[in-house]
Amino acid sequence: MGQQQGLGRVTQALTERLGAGRLITDPLARSTYECDGLANHKAVPGLVVLAESPDDIAVTVRECAREGVPFVARGSGTGLSGGALPHTDGVLIVTSRLREIVDIDVAAQRAVVQPGVINLQLTKAATPHGYYFAPDPSSQQVCSIGGNLAENSGGAHCLKYGFTVHHITGAQVVTPVGDVVDIGGKAPDPPGYDLLSMLVGSEGTLGVVTSITVKLTRLPQTVRCLLAGFPDTDSAGAATSAIIGSGCIPAAIEMMDTLAIEAAEAAVACNYPAGAGAVLVVELDGPAAQVEAQFAQVEAFCREHGAFELRVAADETERALIWRGRKSAFAAVGRISPDYLVQDGVIPRTALPEVLHAIAELGRERGVRVANVFHAGDGNLHPLVLFDGDVPGEEERAEEVSGAILDLCISHGGSITGEHGVGSDKAKYMPRMFSDADLDTMQMVRCAFDPDSISNPGKIFPTPRLCGERPGRHRGAHPLAQAGIAEVF
Amino acid sequence: MGQQQGLGRVTQALTERLGAGRLITDPLARSTYECDGLANHKAVPGLVVLAESPDDIAVTVRECAREGVPFVARGSGTGLSGGALPHTDGVLIVTSRLREIVDIDVAAQRAVVQPGVINLQLTKAATPHGYYFAPDPSSQQVCSIGGNLAENSGGAHCLKYGFTVHHITGAQVVTPVGDVVDIGGKAPDPPGYDLLSMLVGSEGTLGVVTSITVKLTRLPQTVRCLLAGFPDTDSAGAATSAIIGSGCIPAAIEMMDTLAIEAAEAAVACNYPAGAGAVLVVELDGPAAQVEAQFAQVEAFCREHGAFELRVAADETERALIWRGRKSAFAAVGRISPDYLVQDGVIPRTALPEVLHAIAELGRERGVRVANVFHAGDGNLHPLVLFDGDVPGEEERAEEVSGAILDLCISHGGSITGEHGVGSDKAKYMPRMFSDADLDTMQMVRCAFDPDSISNPGKIFPTPRLCGERPGRHRGAHPLAQAGIAEVF
Repeated sequence: MGQQQGLGRVTQALTERLGAGRLITDPLARSTYECDGLANHKAVPGLVVLAESPDDIAVTVRECAREGVPFVARGSGTGLSGGALPHTDGVLIVTSRLREIVDIDVAAQRAVVQPGVINLQLTKAATPHGYYFAPDPSSQQVCSIGGNLAENSGGAHCLKYGFTVHHITGAQVVTPVGDVVDIGGKAPDPPGYDLLSMLVGSEGTLGVVTSITVKLTRLPQTVRCLLAGFPDTDSAGAATSAIIGSGCIPAAIEMMDTLAIEAAEAAVACNYPAGAGAVLVVELDGPAAQVEAQFAQVEAFCREHGAFELRVAADETERALIWRGRKSAFAAVGRISPDYLVQDGVIPRTALPEVLHAIAELGRERGVRVANVFHAGDGNLHPLVLFDGDVPGEEERAEEVSGAILDLCISHGGSITGEHGVGSDKAKYMPRMFSDADLDTMQMVRCAFDPDSISNPGKIFPTPRLCGERPGRHRGAHPLAQAGIAEVF
Repeated sequence: MGQQQGLGRVTQALTERLGAGRLITDPLARSTYECDGLANHKAVPGLVVLAESPDDIAVTVRECAREGVPFVARGSGTGLSGGALPHTDGVLIVTSRLREIVDIDVAAQRAVVQPGVINLQLTKAATPHGYYFAPDPSSQQVCSIGGNLAENSGGAHCLKYGFTVHHITGAQVVTPVGDVVDIGGKAPDPPGYDLLSMLVGSEGTLGVVTSITVKLTRLPQTVRCLLAGFPDTDSAGAATSAIIGSGCIPAAIEMMDTLAIEAAEAAVACNYPAGAGAVLVVELDGPAAQVEAQFAQVEAFCREHGAFELRVAADETERALIWRGRKSAFAAVGRISPDYLVQDGVIPRTALPEVLHAIAELGRERGVRVANVFHAGDGNLHPLVLFDGDVPGEEERAEEVSGAILDLCISHGGSITGEHGVGSDKAKYMPRMFSDADLDTMQMVRCAFDPDSISNPGKIFPTPRLCGERPGRHRGAHPLAQAGIAEVF
């Protein structure tokens, strides 16, 4: 009730300060923003602010801070973990109108962008200078760089080029108490604590970003792409290990299994090798001399490990065709199943065969089909768990399988998320990977930034920590002191 | 006095628990540890513990925490910023006996090492498997990986391969309250806040590391190295910019100016091109096909920008000869000057010519000679400021020039340290780069780990912050709220 009254006062103050044109108060219009790419978590925001300047964001956060009203930032709303799930009694700050590329500094290989700038828009702007923005989530045509920062997004090419965190050198952020601060800048690696790496991937819990300084990457001289058909995922996995083990780092190695191939065929007729139990898409980029030499090796490794068909893209059109099947795979699953869950987990690459068999076994046991599409090079799995929501019990079984897959990832030394983030979806899984003490330590850091827990509360952490507690001096009193983590002595 | 009594009790407890053989209490023997590589800051530690196991470290830290006695960790003591400067009333925890390489996991491309393992020792152990540890400070024959982690060390090859932080995926740390926790592991990029990036480079202020998981890098197929003589630093700088601007990322581009060349000649007779105003050492590594193609381009860029002599190393012996001059440069300066200060600052590469001229001008104005040896590729300067300590006023003038060089770095958008760290030496310069509020924010994070400020106190931060203060809700009360940082609205 207190928050509702606070929200009323925030709405009134923002109407005066920003003007009604930047606010959405109508319930039907607000409901457009009830979820992000994770459509099964929904909440209609109490107020939507369409920020048109960094100042709008600062003003909004300050009003929220004054009234203790929660706020959530949203870019394009393509996130897959519910990181931009709104609060019914809170404010949703939409950054889509903040689309200015402020600076492209070719000499320093940096760009400064507003948070609503679309990922691909930056690459298009940098291309005439011979550069691009390397992180490329599959949603790159619509996702925002602010969202990429919040979720530390990956993409097909992060095997070679790293995650978003490796491409951000500075950010301006409105902290949850309404201050505007700069962290980092154009230069790499400043002294003192590395707060920037912590900000990236903090999913909006440490504030709202108003400006982002990113690295630009030189466009490669050559790109070569091949599609290889294998009898099964084991042989495709063995080829992957052989390629990486040789010291070659391809720009991408993507794998799809039979069910995923079937879905892609149904949707885009990509004409992948008939009868394949798995396909690999391998892409190399870099100086022509290097790429040619390594490409021949990659072909040899594929054949050696059982590839029965190899197709090398002769030009950009053929390359696009190869990628079309892979990139359509998520949506394509809708062609073969009424509903599905997209999972995102990580395992050491060497555990691929074992984990894929265990996933198949899980599916058989529970009578649930699982399609696998994944970044094989870095062990980032995206199992698609199929179900029919109209059949009683199927959704629950699918969710059980999906959760069990995460347990498999953890027990093999991996992680509950590779690139989609924790958000509202996976907060409940965090205790499977971290002890209470680990999570408490992270939240102590959060308290330093957001003492009133109003900045995207309910995300990442399953149980909010009360701020203001001082860690004790002695063993056992400190939040880190739990046998569960690593009490090895 | 309280700390002295506390130290007495800590000494007694540790004598009982660890045995006298692991402690150094004799004043003369303790004085061996009075400084690290920064020889002009000295303090004899109150007690030295030669830890022989991770457990020894945990026990020591817990005794210190119980008594509120400060402790400092020390690896090989090669640090150049006084990060391992002891406390007279505190304990120095030496990790040199912790030299076990616990695991080399070739399939996962990871190694697990104890903190006292010597940087080059790991590379030697990994080489038979076709791998090495990429960070290579000039001190790599003696420096410890624990020290590399604490200072986030760089090296000649970090232009291409990144800093230590880019090669560490996990650490076990004894926190300042004595708990043992694991952060990260063999897998990259776990969910939640990135505490590992913050731990790396925190210079021992967040605890003592007992185990480190690092990435192993595949040995390159080919390494090519050349030495180019230029008329002056401007032309060598222009060649550097042309090489980087072409999209080629050499493993290293090192520059030395006339005075540095003169010193190296005096010391090791490296026979660098006669009459050169500057030399570049450029090294390329990677697949042979790529290296050959790019090497030809590098040669062309050097000639185009005025190189009057190019020497390409025909074999490992000639390559070693080229590097000998560069690697001896710091020590060699002792041949041409009784005393010198080693500075470490960073500027954007594009500002090289301007800053080098300004440094020369500074030297002329104050009558101080400055030799320049630096990582040209990433703008990491190491000016060597020469003086004679026996001439009254010379040391003070040298320190003024050295400090003024850091101001130049800051005003050109750079940093007060590239790879040597802040330590005790540069804590006083931190306010030139960060506002009080910035430093306060970092210290709030520190308080979460070290509420009693006993973990390497006096390093990094010029003014200790009292822990336990809660940031206020409203603007102005929050430590981040200072116009100085980035109050742009």
